[in-house]
Order: sequence, then structure tokens, then C-alpha cells
Amino acid sequence: MDKKEISKAVINRLPRYYRYLGDLLEKDVVRISSKELSKRMKVTASQIRQDLNNFGGFGQQGYGYNVEYLHTEIGKILGLDKQYNIIIIGAGNLGQALANYADFERRGFIVKGIFDVNPRLVGLTIRGIEIRNLDNLEEFVKMNQIDIAALALPKTQAPQVALDLASWGIKGFWNFAPTDYQLPDDVIVENVHLAESLMKLSYRLSEKYKSVDN
Amino acid sequence: MDKKEISKAVINRLPRYYRYLGDLLEKDVVRISSKELSKRMKVTASQIRQDLNNFGGFGQQGYGYNVEYLHTEIGKILGLDKQYNIIIIGAGNLGQALANYADFERRGFIVKGIFDVNPRLVGLTIRGIEIRNLDNLEEFVKMNQIDIAALALPKTQAPQVALDLASWGIKGFWNFAPTDYQLPDDVIVENVHLAESLMKLSYRLSEKYKSVDN
Repeated sequence: MDKKEISKAVINRLPRYYRYLGDLLEKDVVRISSKELSKRMKVTASQIRQDLNNFGGFGQQGYGYNVEYLHTEIGKILGLDKQYNIIIIGAGNLGQALANYADFERRGFIVKGIFDVNPRLVGLTIRGIEIRNLDNLEEFVKMNQIDIAALALPKTQAPQVALDLASWGIKGFWNFAPTDYQLPDDVIVENVHLAESLMKLSYRLSEKYKSVDN
Repeated sequence: MDKKEISKAVINRLPRYYRYLGDLLEKDVVRISSKELSKRMKVTASQIRQDLNNFGGFGQQGYGYNVEYLHTEIGKILGLDKQYNIIIIGAGNLGQALANYADFERRGFIVKGIFDVNPRLVGLTIRGIEIRNLDNLEEFVKMNQIDIAALALPKTQAPQVALDLASWGIKGFWNFAPTDYQLPDDVIVENVHLAESLMKLSYRLSEKYKSVDN
């Protein structure tokens, strides 16, 4: 099985398959047909069969998919069978929201440290994890095996902190700051741009309702 | 100028143009060539010219783009010249992070109300806005002109609340709950799926570094 041929569009759908299958598992659903899955996901059944065939199928004619097996296998493809150590930079509301999201931990993303410059936050704990001073970041990263840094700090500070983190060996960045980075090629940045998402919503609203507004 | 021909890919790039131009404005940059803009945005200069030509161009040969004018015009295309009244459902860390993000207000997204079921949160204020009991949601929506509901509540409750809100006339949903919705066709849902974004990062990390790990 050569994963290199898998298109980006398929990869983008995998987390959604994973989420749906997880929901089914919670409801103790043992198996599901591509037709049912298709109805829930609003994707055609043939699209689902095609997507999953990329990874060697998993379905059986007349039986459908075994939910738990498919969930596990897609999890493996997504790299969720490994553990990732995360640090969160920025302990404001957003950083705290990330730290408090226990679901991440369930999927193998373990928050190892939270950092901030605000003296009113440093020393507090979130889910048992102490908020540390940003001055201690270098030592902490070098002493611990950190895979991912979640960047939930202001855009003015984020680029320099990311550069430092990359120079200390961090390969994965989960970025929430509304800025871009000049980082080495071996580093992966996954962006969540909240303001851009909100602008897309306003675009779609104003396009749809412009005849009403004008 | 017929906006209907504009592709989704162009629309997806517009918020980024808007952000870059806003950064330039903050630095008092008056004009910029497509070449410079291209270097900053890591998009080819010809792509930029093509994208902006969709909206009638804005550039002048040999002069480049007037930053403020381009920023304003793209803002109009994105619907940012209007005001949107927002309510936030869920006043946990994420809801609070959204309520505290003053930048949204600067762009015309005005938080009118925040709602939660947690009695420890109800009555507190965030940036002067009181957190109200979810029981008061219907009355509030019917008394106020609300355009967008940000859904920052658990996935178990989100679908029903969204259905109610749609039935009370809300057309725009900014969804953070890891679930999908069965809503009328005239409703627009823009999703921010944090867990799915993190899974994409883990996929990219495990693909890139699998030879090292295995």
C-alpha cells in the first residue's frame, strides 16, 4: 500500500470520517453500510468507498464496515496511534481552552507544559499543569521531548517564539496567531485562522443576502 | 462586475490578502507592488494580479497597489463594511476567548450577548457584556437583530440550540462544536473544527517522520 498517491482532498476528509465513526462507537453501533455513512456525512456512498479503498478497503460486500475496525485503522493513518507531547504558548482564554480540552488527550495529544509572560498567570495550574514563565521555555523544550507547539500568543510575539522553538527542534506547530512564519522546511505548520474563518462567513452572508440588504 | 464568476479558491485567499494589507497599513505602508505582496504571501505575483482582476483590478501599471484602497475594497467584497451582531453560545474558555477578541469588533462583528447554562458563569460580564442564562435565549434573539451565532457549546447540545436559533431567524452560524447540523438551506454554517485541524497536523507529522519513528 503506497500512501504517497493519496490526494489532499481525501486526507482532508479523513478526520471527519474519524469523528463520525467515533460518534457511532459511542452509540455502540457495530457496523455501518457506506450508504448509511453517506447519509450522515453528506458525501456520496461511492465517494466513501473510493476514499476508503485508498487504504485497502476495510469494507465487506453485503456487510458494510466494522465501525471499530475502521475507526482504528483511520486513526492509524492519521497518526493517532502515536503519542504527541504538546506545549501551549500563551495561557489566555484560547490557550486555556486548548489546555482544558480533554478530548485531545484521549487521542494521544498530551499537554506537557503551558507558558505565558503574564505574572498573574504564571504559577496557576490548568488540569494539573502549571503555567510556566516563558523565560523557562528553552530549558523545558530541551529537557522534554516535545513534538508540537500550539501557538496561542499575540501575533507580535509569535514569529520569534516559533523561530526559537524550531531551532530547539520542534517540528510541529499548531498556529492560532493571525500571522505567517519563516520557518525551516522540515517544520510543519497547521493554521487555525479564526478571523479569516469569520470573514468567510461574512462574505457568504453578504453574498447571499445582498439583494435584501441593498 | 459580476461576482458570481469568482471561484471559491479566490474567495478563500481574500481574507489573507485582507490580513496582509491590514498589517501593511499598521506599518504605514502606502503602496505595494504585486511582486512585493507576492513575496510576503508566498503566492506568485501573477496569481495576485489574476485574483485582484476578478474585482476589477485596483492596481496601476508601474505604481502597484494603493494599500489602503485595496484593503478597503477587499473589505467591502468580504462584507466587512457592514455590521454584524453576534451572540456567543457557551461561555467556557473558548466562548470567552471569542468574546475577548477585540479585533472582531474593529471589523464590524459586535458581540451583543453571551449565553451559558452554568449558574457559576451566568451574571458575570466579559468586556462589559453580561453572560445570560440560556433560558433567555429565545426572548433575546427575538428582541434583538442578531446576524450570527457563534456555537461554542458541547456537541451534545449544539444541534438542538442551532435548530432553535435558525427557527428564530438567525442566518449565520460560526460553529466550533465537533458536530454537523441539519439546518434549513438558507442558513450558512462556517466551521472551525479544532480536533480535525490537530489530526491533520498529526497526519502530516507522522507522514513526514514515519521513516524516523518506525
